[in-house]
Amino acid sequence: MEKQINVNKPKRRLTKKGEETRFRIVKAAAELMFEHGVASTTVEEVQKKAQVSASQLYHYFKEKRALVQAVIIYQTEQVLSTQKSWVIQLDSMEALRTWRDAIVQLQNSRQCRGGCPIGSLASELSDVVPEARSELAAAFMNWEHFICKGLHAMQERGELSSDANPDELALALLTALQGGLLLTQVRKETLPLEIGLDSMLEHISSFII
Amino acid sequence: MEKQINVNKPKRRLTKKGEETRFRIVKAAAELMFEHGVASTTVEEVQKKAQVSASQLYHYFKEKRALVQAVIIYQTEQVLSTQKSWVIQLDSMEALRTWRDAIVQLQNSRQCRGGCPIGSLASELSDVVPEARSELAAAFMNWEHFICKGLHAMQERGELSSDANPDELALALLTALQGGLLLTQVRKETLPLEIGLDSMLEHISSFII
Repeated sequence: MEKQINVNKPKRRLTKKGEETRFRIVKAAAELMFEHGVASTTVEEVQKKAQVSASQLYHYFKEKRALVQAVIIYQTEQVLSTQKSWVIQLDSMEALRTWRDAIVQLQNSRQCRGGCPIGSLASELSDVVPEARSELAAAFMNWEHFICKGLHAMQERGELSSDANPDELALALLTALQGGLLLTQVRKETLPLEIGLDSMLEHISSFII
Repeated sequence: MEKQINVNKPKRRLTKKGEETRFRIVKAAAELMFEHGVASTTVEEVQKKAQVSASQLYHYFKEKRALVQAVIIYQTEQVLSTQKSWVIQLDSMEALRTWRDAIVQLQNSRQCRGGCPIGSLASELSDVVPEARSELAAAFMNWEHFICKGLHAMQERGELSSDANPDELALALLTALQGGLLLTQVRKETLPLEIGLDSMLEHISSFII
């Protein structure tokens, strides 16, 4: 049987070395964009940091927009896999507090630089690059789903009151997290993140039976 | 008596016409930066939008950084005066809900574009322009103080439990607001803003006696 080639997913056709080069470019771009913003990051800087030639970079990404899309996907995977490495599920108050502590610790270890890797891309791109906005909205939906799944599990086990709306609580917690990360970035102290998350966790715990 | 000239505040020495020109430049820059971001706004674009010559612009702002500082001050004044036009004081749950409704309505009228004028500047500039970060931290402090003052008044009147910490509740509400505005900008619907603010207001109301 002839090997199928999925034309919609060209990256599937990359060799192992090709995948590695592509990953190196995306990682370099993600780091630069996280530090300086998307508009202030040039393709030449990415090329230099990733140690690839201009034609190599062009081979994988025909234009900056395509690179930005890959960066959004990369950062989403990074954020979610990091969070899942702390807690497999956010399905207890204890798990939620472990998650809260780990986020605060991460910002401290970063000297409160950079805010949220997804949030800062969202702030810069949502109104100017429509396809980036869609990808970022999907990223936040995935994140919300991760929180929501745990709250639903708590409700199903009868630990969270039936009066609680897990979908709304998950979204509310994500707003406190995003706002907390932004204010932490501005103030260069984790207090806003701690207070924002603690207040929302206290609100969630008011539904605990 | 000789008229005093405060050398630390050169803008005081501007004529009425000079003040108007300066204001026109700052307003134009604020609008462009709100729409496209600071990095993507050139001095030439500001000059064109404000309908001033290059030398006129240079007369008021020797470099882009000075213009950015003026934009931060302008946006802070705009945001706070708008909020104070809705409610003089946030010193009751009714006032807090009026404020919440007005913010949601404003984002709706903007088709959820732009997020928070201060928050988006904060996300872009906090780590790259130190003097902008200080000005933005001060802007958020003013905003927090506006919320906090009302909550303190409620506590002094005995309407808010002595267990409540008005400073923390004000900061928590600001995180929900900032996160809600960001997610609203990404999703192009005000649901995250509504859910974030409502959850935090519910938390605050749990301290009402």
